[in-house]
Amino acid sequence: GFAKLDHNRSLRQGFPEVVYCEGKTVEQVAAIMEKLAQVHNNILGTRADADKFAAVQKVLPDAVYHKNSRLIFVERKPLPKDDKRYIAVVTAGTSDLPISEEAALTAEIMGNQVERVYDVGVAGIHRLFDKLDLIRNANVVIVVAGMEGALASVVGGLVERPVIAVPTSVGYGANFQGLSALLGMLNSCSAGVAVVNIDNGFGAGRMASIINHMR
Amino acid sequence: GFAKLDHNRSLRQGFPEVVYCEGKTVEQVAAIMEKLAQVHNNILGTRADADKFAAVQKVLPDAVYHKNSRLIFVERKPLPKDDKRYIAVVTAGTSDLPISEEAALTAEIMGNQVERVYDVGVAGIHRLFDKLDLIRNANVVIVVAGMEGALASVVGGLVERPVIAVPTSVGYGANFQGLSALLGMLNSCSAGVAVVNIDNGFGAGRMASIINHMR
Amino acid sequence: GFAKLDHNRSLRQGFPEVVYCEGKTVEQVAAIMEKLAQVHNNILGTRADADKFAAVQKVLPDAVYHKNSRLIFVERKPLPKDDKRYIAVVTAGTSDLPISEEAALTAEIMGNQVERVYDVGVAGIHRLFDKLDLIRNANVVIVVAGMEGALASVVGGLVERPVIAVPTSVGYGANFQGLSALLGMLNSCSAGVAVVNIDNGFGAGRMASIINHMR
Amino acid sequence: GFAKLDHNRSLRQGFPEVVYCEGKTVEQVAAIMEKLAQVHNNILGTRADADKFAAVQKVLPDAVYHKNSRLIFVERKPLPKDDKRYIAVVTAGTSDLPISEEAALTAEIMGNQVERVYDVGVAGIHRLFDKLDLIRNANVVIVVAGMEGALASVVGGLVERPVIAVPTSVGYGANFQGLSALLGMLNSCSAGVAVVNIDNGFGAGRMASIINHMR
Amino acid sequence: GFAKLDHNRSLRQGFPEVVYCEGKTVEQVAAIMEKLAQVHNNILGTRADADKFAAVQKVLPDAVYHKNSRLIFVERKPLPKDDKRYIAVVTAGTSDLPISEEAALTAEIMGNQVERVYDVGVAGIHRLFDKLDLIRNANVVIVVAGMEGALASVVGGLVERPVIAVPTSVGYGANFQGLSALLGMLNSCSAGVAVVNIDNGFGAGRMASIINHMR
Amino acid sequence: GFAKLDHNRSLRQGFPEVVYCEGKTVEQVAAIMEKLAQVHNNILGTRADADKFAAVQKVLPDAVYHKNSRLIFVERKPLPKDDKRYIAVVTAGTSDLPISEEAALTAEIMGNQVERVYDVGVAGIHRLFDKLDLIRNANVVIVVAGMEGALASVVGGLVERPVIAVPTSVGYGANFQGLSALLGMLNSCSAGVAVVNIDNGFGAGRMASIINHMR
Amino acid sequence: GFAKLDHNRSLRQGFPEVVYCEGKTVEQVAAIMEKLAQVHNNILGTRADADKFAAVQKVLPDAVYHKNSRLIFVERKPLPKDDKRYIAVVTAGTSDLPISEEAALTAEIMGNQVERVYDVGVAGIHRLFDKLDLIRNANVVIVVAGMEGALASVVGGLVERPVIAVPTSVGYGANFQGLSALLGMLNSCSAGVAVVNIDNGFGAGRMASIINHMR
Amino acid sequence: GFAKLDHNRSLRQGFPEVVYCEGKTVEQVAAIMEKLAQVHNNILGTRADADKFAAVQKVLPDAVYHKNSRLIFVERKPLPKDDKRYIAVVTAGTSDLPISEEAALTAEIMGNQVERVYDVGVAGIHRLFDKLDLIRNANVVIVVAGMEGALASVVGGLVERPVIAVPTSVGYGANFQGLSALLGMLNSCSAGVAVVNIDNGFGAGRMASIINHMR
Ligand SMILES: Nc1ncnc2c1ncn2[C@@H]1O[C@H](COP(=O)(O)O)[C@@H](O)[C@H]1O
Ligand SMILES: Nc1ncnc2c1ncn2[C@@H]1O[C@H](COP(=O)(O)O)[C@@H](O)[C@H]1O
Ligand SMILES: Nc1ncnc2c1ncn2[C@@H]1O[C@H](COP(=O)(O)O)[C@@H](O)[C@H]1O
Ligand SMILES: Nc1ncnc2c1ncn2[C@@H]1O[C@H](COP(=O)(O)O)[C@@H](O)[C@H]1O
Ligand SMILES: [Mg+2]
Ligand SMILES: [Mg+2]
Ligand SMILES: [Mg+2]
Ligand SMILES: [Mg+2]
Ligand SMILES: [Mg+2]
Ligand SMILES: [Mg+2]
Ligand SMILES: [Mg+2]
Ligand SMILES: [Mg+2]
Repeated sequence: GFAKLDHNRSLRQGFPEVVYCEGKTVEQVAAIMEKLAQVHNNILGTRADADKFAAVQKVLPDAVYHKNSRLIFVERKPLPKDDKRYIAVVTAGTSDLPISEEAALTAEIMGNQVERVYDVGVAGIHRLFDKLDLIRNANVVIVVAGMEGALASVVGGLVERPVIAVPTSVGYGANFQGLSALLGMLNSCSAGVAVVNIDNGFGAGRMASIINHMR
Repeated sequence: GFAKLDHNRSLRQGFPEVVYCEGKTVEQVAAIMEKLAQVHNNILGTRADADKFAAVQKVLPDAVYHKNSRLIFVERKPLPKDDKRYIAVVTAGTSDLPISEEAALTAEIMGNQVERVYDVGVAGIHRLFDKLDLIRNANVVIVVAGMEGALASVVGGLVERPVIAVPTSVGYGANFQGLSALLGMLNSCSAGVAVVNIDNGFGAGRMASIINHMR
Repeated sequence: GFAKLDHNRSLRQGFPEVVYCEGKTVEQVAAIMEKLAQVHNNILGTRADADKFAAVQKVLPDAVYHKNSRLIFVERKPLPKDDKRYIAVVTAGTSDLPISEEAALTAEIMGNQVERVYDVGVAGIHRLFDKLDLIRNANVVIVVAGMEGALASVVGGLVERPVIAVPTSVGYGANFQGLSALLGMLNSCSAGVAVVNIDNGFGAGRMASIINHMR
Repeated sequence: GFAKLDHNRSLRQGFPEVVYCEGKTVEQVAAIMEKLAQVHNNILGTRADADKFAAVQKVLPDAVYHKNSRLIFVERKPLPKDDKRYIAVVTAGTSDLPISEEAALTAEIMGNQVERVYDVGVAGIHRLFDKLDLIRNANVVIVVAGMEGALASVVGGLVERPVIAVPTSVGYGANFQGLSALLGMLNSCSAGVAVVNIDNGFGAGRMASIINHMR
Repeated sequence: GFAKLDHNRSLRQGFPEVVYCEGKTVEQVAAIMEKLAQVHNNILGTRADADKFAAVQKVLPDAVYHKNSRLIFVERKPLPKDDKRYIAVVTAGTSDLPISEEAALTAEIMGNQVERVYDVGVAGIHRLFDKLDLIRNANVVIVVAGMEGALASVVGGLVERPVIAVPTSVGYGANFQGLSALLGMLNSCSAGVAVVNIDNGFGAGRMASIINHMR
Repeated sequence: GFAKLDHNRSLRQGFPEVVYCEGKTVEQVAAIMEKLAQVHNNILGTRADADKFAAVQKVLPDAVYHKNSRLIFVERKPLPKDDKRYIAVVTAGTSDLPISEEAALTAEIMGNQVERVYDVGVAGIHRLFDKLDLIRNANVVIVVAGMEGALASVVGGLVERPVIAVPTSVGYGANFQGLSALLGMLNSCSAGVAVVNIDNGFGAGRMASIINHMR
Repeated sequence: GFAKLDHNRSLRQGFPEVVYCEGKTVEQVAAIMEKLAQVHNNILGTRADADKFAAVQKVLPDAVYHKNSRLIFVERKPLPKDDKRYIAVVTAGTSDLPISEEAALTAEIMGNQVERVYDVGVAGIHRLFDKLDLIRNANVVIVVAGMEGALASVVGGLVERPVIAVPTSVGYGANFQGLSALLGMLNSCSAGVAVVNIDNGFGAGRMASIINHMR
Repeated sequence: GFAKLDHNRSLRQGFPEVVYCEGKTVEQVAAIMEKLAQVHNNILGTRADADKFAAVQKVLPDAVYHKNSRLIFVERKPLPKDDKRYIAVVTAGTSDLPISEEAALTAEIMGNQVERVYDVGVAGIHRLFDKLDLIRNANVVIVVAGMEGALASVVGGLVERPVIAVPTSVGYGANFQGLSALLGMLNSCSAGVAVVNIDNGFGAGRMASIINHMR
């Protein structure tokens, strides 16, 4: 009753509706994921806490929980991956890892090869240049950064591929829960950068996956 | 002296540095575009007023001005276009046209076929459904909308291609110069939508072009 | 002493003063509801936590608690309902249910037939069209949505009845606790939409009830 | 080409699409209004400056301009009005008149009797009480106020009919172009108040008209 | 070491430095109040939680705690009060009581007669008129209100005495922790109203006391 | 018709309604002031431009215009002033003069002796100390400051009289049209400071006058 | 009368009071600068338009105007400069030049050698590396950038000297008049960066000069 | 794997990378600090809670925790200090101590002599003047203040040395978590003041240290 699952989304968009777990009760999350799993092989829940995972696991024992990124996975028939075309997930600092892993895991379950480039924030920019080839050879690049989010502009100026920027809420004071990184990325002086919501690793992974599957 | 042109950007990114004309003097704009035109066939200036165009035209008589979109073009050797893969530019209302034309013209000069779908805002959603095939067959979709920017979410739920959303400053009162459309698009419940700055038609056209050239 | 109950409000406005429980002590809430119940048959408390309900139940054993919507009800003499004229409560996502139930339950206790249309957010707009007749035949429509709140504009363009829009705080990041949905709804390009406060299901139910009782 | 008129809106919603003139060129406004006038008897353009009206008048010589409220009217076959059920337009101060006239004129062209109650802001509340009967006997009430917008709450507590509140941008400093009145009205402690965008007299008139035509 | 008590403030301003307890450690609060009590008869701490009071009580056994208003009092030699000139503390709703009591108690310890007028918010304005004489005969008026804060403007228009307005954080959603009431009060169309910080009952009591002692 | 003058305000509050000229037409301002002048000896219009004054002067030839402060005065029977009790108007910088003169002139026409203390901003605090006696001997103190508005806190800590703080919009960048001074003054660590709207010299003068007339 | 010049500031701080020309009348600016020039050799006015300069030039014929940076200079006895210790002024884009010149010229008149490094924004970061030695050898570094302001973090991570960051209002849309660059710079992940107000080239030049004169 | 330590930062900037502990797991913090301690003598972690310190202490038994300031120190080979050139850390109120100690301790571990001047906020400005010599003789001054942050401007006007201002989140209501102090400091009318992020004591200590080591 309470949910109208959008089953044909997997036809329209190549992956079934993803469950946004926040604001739903434990029972609702479990019931929705159970229903989805009757129709689809691979399903995903985002922003789930441990209690919600516990309830899901009761009805779907093969569900997996990525605690830091708060993702619930059921992956019964992994999608094929083109290992020539990978998505690079470039992360500014260790504190941004929960969000960048959300992006990377989302992209993987949706059938993409992912290369992770961690801890290359602009405060020590030589770390980024050490990894430049790996980044430049990616088919799509996701940049995850908090605080001032400057990494997106720097990477955007160095690659010729589309850059999906994810501002994170990492920081304090005048970062205003991610506003500083968000505004920074929206105002990037590098063209070829588009932005998703603060802490929306899932959205970035989904967007990158769509682009990466284009032929 | 005052400008350090980034000539090898056309190597790195397939199109030379685009001139952001706001905040530059008339003389600076003319000098920069003249220098770029010595090295590149096709050049672009954004957010230019009529005075700046007049100065450019003196040094580059083949420059063209798109008044409503405030673009200056020099297009001496049009880039080839793949007419199978087009970019759809979907616009909510007539008042958003200056920005959506900025996106469309940018995409065209960068070598893309563009289909324009105008005036299909959600207040009369049947207008959008009349054009659904044209939108769904696009390779990349740009959605331009002001006020509440709802069109991006609706289109994002209907297509399987990447959607680049451009919030415009069209509206008044609590639209706070485009903030309402921006926040709406960033919080889109449709995955597969990424956002550029308010009124940044150029950025959307550039991003769509990069994606559209991927193979 | 601490409260001056506005008993003649039920004369002026057809329903007694509703108790806003937040910021009141447990004792104050219980005492106020007890006093109201001495004069009125049907009373309502909003935004009440379980502790406050427990205290109310001690003095009013027939009080009922709607936990997710945080409402306390005493309904001793249900008001008559005109079942030809119903209010449709249209909800974007499952996470918005606590607020949309607050609206629906408020409308019901105030003597209205309510039809609930759940989980029809714009990410999968066919779900909305499946329910279009039910929505179009309503006398008044309440739309409850978080994130970008686009559903209000879409529904507003499809019906000829008044639409009361309730932005919810569902979402994260740049939704800024409901600001994105609020601004989206205020800037709706569909006329015939008016807005209440973020998460104010009660206010929407009350407003819809007033309109629905007009002859 | 540039506009896709939503002609069947007058079927769906009892009045043809209203032209939002801001952000459109003079030529676009004239062309759109001309086309609408070929199909509809009564048409309306909002937020139009004198230049746009001049262009419209050339193609539609019977067009009328309400300068302070920036409305363009063509009213060839006035809609019938039920003079028992009137809409009261209650205005706080003289400076709010352009917006309250926009509401009143919109309601009139859409077929409603309107009673105007001017200059009854809360700084001298006896002025409001002098007019209380006129306000209480209205079928729907529109309240237009700038600065702190307190009038909406006061009126909302005195009437049993629906109140549509219009915050205006009248004021300065910490009114932040109407934000103070907007937030005040959204947070009204009086239930039965719903809010439209800052300075959106048109939207309030439209909403009140829809409610006033309900039977 | 960590605090430099401003003992001669009681000379300059008639009451010793008041201790702002938030952000100080339990030990710091106790030590500061102990020191002040060695020099002054009457001392006051604001925004203190129960733990801090417990620590103070150990060193100052005659300290008193007003829990809801989070005040710590030591009042050894009550100041004389002029019972002809009283301060009226006018409160909109029961939820605002913690703040209005903070104002009233502050004014009392500083040597003022206080009359409390509770629960007279504008949603039922007759309640205010019932108390009008009491309010008009006050020497100074404090108005405490949350949500839209309209009460300050209404009272400001009815009295000829200075009105000190205290916005509270009571409300939710677009009240943004008191911003709506703050902006409403700052934009009051009634002259003769000045505003203190959100939830700053202490500041209002202090200001009213200073005015009330003027001859 | 368009204005309902609140003539008995001069009974209630000792001075007739003051005309807020912004947002009124030239004709409205002239008509309102003419009507007021038929009943009252001394009248005041605020925020008036030169055109509005010209129109007023035609109907009231003895009207006077204070251009920088945008005030219109008619003062036919100056109110008596108690020269023992003066109001000090303390101004931070020369750029704040239009606002501080608005406060001073308002206080004077309302029957108060005023002492002006100019250009004593905290960047050179010795200038303030040079004038300390003049400030400390005032009956009421108005502090007018833009930028960070620190002067209000400094003065508030030095005097025992009530301080009315007026934030001005003087500054640029992160002053956000006066927000920085407003927030600074609201958060003043000196008790005994209350705040009026940004650039509201009139409101401060009125408030100070009310206090100064108390006995 | 209207200004209290702080002549001994040049003793305290090595340079006389600088005149902030905005919000002052033409006459006030001319009078203040004339007075200062009677006591000091070198004086400076900021944010002056051409009219104000014209008035100054009448009384001080040797005054010089830097139009783009809106500075008025009188430099009669240039201060000595230590050419070993220079200040690098590093600018992101050509549109930021008015502000970076304000910083550079301020530093020069205050007796500093300045090296200008222009147009090295992060969109083409190789341009910055080409100038790295010049920047690293500076004694103090000023970074001027608009849009996302990322350059401050990148430079801050590359140098060991203090970096003064100046956010500019260059940009549009979600840059909100410089807010994006300001927040970006305040949240810089590079330590050793401190920030001045948006567009405050003068403040940065002054701060850098103070540091550069330390021994 | 998860962190790429920037070991050569101590070459570039005289002190190794400082670990920002927020948003990192307990295990990550311990591992990163352990690795840093293998290469560097003195290391620092900021914004660490007690759990993270416990984990660090297990791997680095000589680590020290400053609880109120949430700093973790390992200081094996204290850096030499020039006791002629000290940094003054000037604090407004006792509630600001955690942040000012963060600044002072950071400066000390980086090899600076520090003088602490506590509790000299502008509400009692004579306390500041009592310490003026100590402040004026400092080589660099850090000012830490919450609420309105006025102390930075006052100190900035009194010293000739660079002032680093740290806004704190101390306060409530319209301080908006430090925004009021931040804006106040950015808009300081005293030149020679630069600002770091809200509550960023570390950043101020680092910046002051860099300046203090200049010769
Ligand atoms: N309290 C702090 N505030 C701001 N930045 C910091 C703080 N502590 C450390 N940092 C810097 O923030 C960056 C943190 O990056 P990471 O540790 O990889 O997340 C490094 O450049 C640190 O030097
Ligand atoms: N003053 C107004 N405020 C808000 N919406 C309006 C106003 N006037 C017209 N509209 C609506 O705004 C939309 C304009 O879209 P377009 O004319 O295509 O740009 C239509 O749905 C109009 O009905
Ligand atoms: N982490 C996420 N962020 C944003 N949107 C999401 C996220 N996870 C799922 N969604 C989408 O949000 C919508 C949730 O609607 P509902 O589940 O009905 O509340 C669906 O369209 C999902 O695909
Ligand atoms: N400068 C001013 N700022 C704020 N309120 C004012 C000002 N001047 C007049 N007022 C008040 O604003 C109200 C204006 O109402 P009205 O003139 O009807 O628009 C009256 O209550 C005036 O006393
Ligand atoms: Mg790191
Ligand atoms: Mg249209
Ligand atoms: Mg759903
Ligand atoms: Mg009036
Ligand atoms: Mg009540
Ligand atoms: Mg001055
Ligand atoms: Mg450039
Ligand atoms: Mg203290």
